Amino acid sequence: MDDIKAFISERDRFARLCGIELLEVGPGRSRARMALTAEHLNGVGSVHGGAIFTLADLAFAAASNSHGTVAVAINVSISYTKAAATGTLTAHAEEVARHPKLASYTVRVTDDSDDLVAIFQGMVYRKREPLTEVGAG
Amino acid sequence: MDDIKAFISERDRFARLCGIELLEVGPGRSRARMALTAEHLNGVGSVHGGAIFTLADLAFAAASNSHGTVAVAINVSISYTKAAATGTLTAHAEEVARHPKLASYTVRVTDDSDDLVAIFQGMVYRKREPLTEVGAG
Amino acid sequence: MDDIKAFISERDRFARLCGIELLEVGPGRSRARMALTAEHLNGVGSVHGGAIFTLADLAFAAASNSHGTVAVAINVSISYTKAAATGTLTAHAEEVARHPKLASYTVRVTDDSDDLVAIFQGMVYRKREPLTEVGAG
Amino acid sequence: MDDIKAFISERDRFARLCGIELLEVGPGRSRARMALTAEHLNGVGSVHGGAIFTLADLAFAAASNSHGTVAVAINVSISYTKAAATGTLTAHAEEVARHPKLASYTVRVTDDSDDLVAIFQGMVYRKREPLTEVGAG
Repeated sequence: MDDIKAFISERDRFARLCGIELLEVGPGRSRARMALTAEHLNGVGSVHGGAIFTLADLAFAAASNSHGTVAVAINVSISYTKAAATGTLTAHAEEVARHPKLASYTVRVTDDSDDLVAIFQGMVYRKREPLTEVGAG
Repeated sequence: MDDIKAFISERDRFARLCGIELLEVGPGRSRARMALTAEHLNGVGSVHGGAIFTLADLAFAAASNSHGTVAVAINVSISYTKAAATGTLTAHAEEVARHPKLASYTVRVTDDSDDLVAIFQGMVYRKREPLTEVGAG
Repeated sequence: MDDIKAFISERDRFARLCGIELLEVGPGRSRARMALTAEHLNGVGSVHGGAIFTLADLAFAAASNSHGTVAVAINVSISYTKAAATGTLTAHAEEVARHPKLASYTVRVTDDSDDLVAIFQGMVYRKREPLTEVGAG
Repeated sequence: MDDIKAFISERDRFARLCGIELLEVGPGRSRARMALTAEHLNGVGSVHGGAIFTLADLAFAAASNSHGTVAVAINVSISYTKAAATGTLTAHAEEVARHPKLASYTVRVTDDSDDLVAIFQGMVYRKREPLTEVGAG
């Protein structure tokens, strides 16, 4: 799993722009975090829904690509359950079902008090292409 | 609507970090765009789902706050319909229903060929607080 | 399209139980209706969310199977925008994107005043199997 | 909780039409089941998505109304993870977040092999009206 963690951590430019760190990747699961700064805020001073989504989405990508073949997000539903503005947000992704072509994941985003900030349910389409060959020079 | 456009454009730090530009805001609708760069890409070289989501989310925020009171996102469902990597993405948000406490929006994200890249359905909880008083010094 | 309409109308037992009538099927679209009775109500006297969903779901199935091969629902998001209790509900399904393996649909459910009761966004996985061979013989 | 279970069991006509039985209701949670018959099938011989949704929706309604005040469904996302045709389906609903006006629930639908058939994420708007006064007298 360490190669998958390294692959995503090095190559995901947008996650880096957002200040997201991938902490661990296991089979069908992962954990990521984002230390909040003023750059994550929206016009009314809360963390932008897009920033929370992106954190959850990176955890989702890591968990769904953890089996070594490319998995592409096709659908996500996210519910926001608590506003956040400071501290660190953590996302835990877990596989809830996996088939040859499709798989589903639940990601929970929590704050420093371990309160739920968002719950995210995502589905991927699984390709046959090995992850490590993608874009290989 | 120009004050709402200015309010969001100036104050939404995360949208600025993502290179998103709010083009117009009307009653219950808005349009925004994001010129794609290498910073928007994920580990496999496509535009990150979080970047597409954030573009749609900004259009959603502008449309739902266009009535002058604060509207907070509570739920979003997004389906990705075409991968994108270069060019400019445009998001159009439209109100589909509005009640005193809740309102719903559909956002369509398209690419330079006018092909649908993602469709986004979002719901907000509407507060009584005027938008322009938020965080006023 | 008439054979697809007949195929679904005759064989969908659950839609019949719910009193749903498929009105028309075209390429990537369909229309269905449900005349409300006391049997559609939930414990607090409104139309049950499951009844509204089932009406939309039948229109979604008809639209997604209209191309002649079996399409299986994999994900749906529904937002309820107005309570209903009497009259007739109508669902219009429209294809928003179609690829060899996946396709997306939006279904709008309206009441007799043409007010939006629910908006439904669904995705299918498309099989190669022709619809008319299913369960044949 | 027994009065809430009785209230819903007696008054939910649509759930009865669908053959759904509410097994238990606790604070923020519930369990319901549906013994599959030919009436639950769609045109291709699988359990209709609307039937699976309705089972999950009843469990969601029971869990969200378990606090004694009326809760109205505003949004649901459901992902189907395994086709089913025979046996009994069971739905477990659990509260994931609750605020004065809004609350969120996850419902898992499983088959006799305890395999996940669908995962459902729903949000309600909470009214102040006590459940037991609804439609009284």
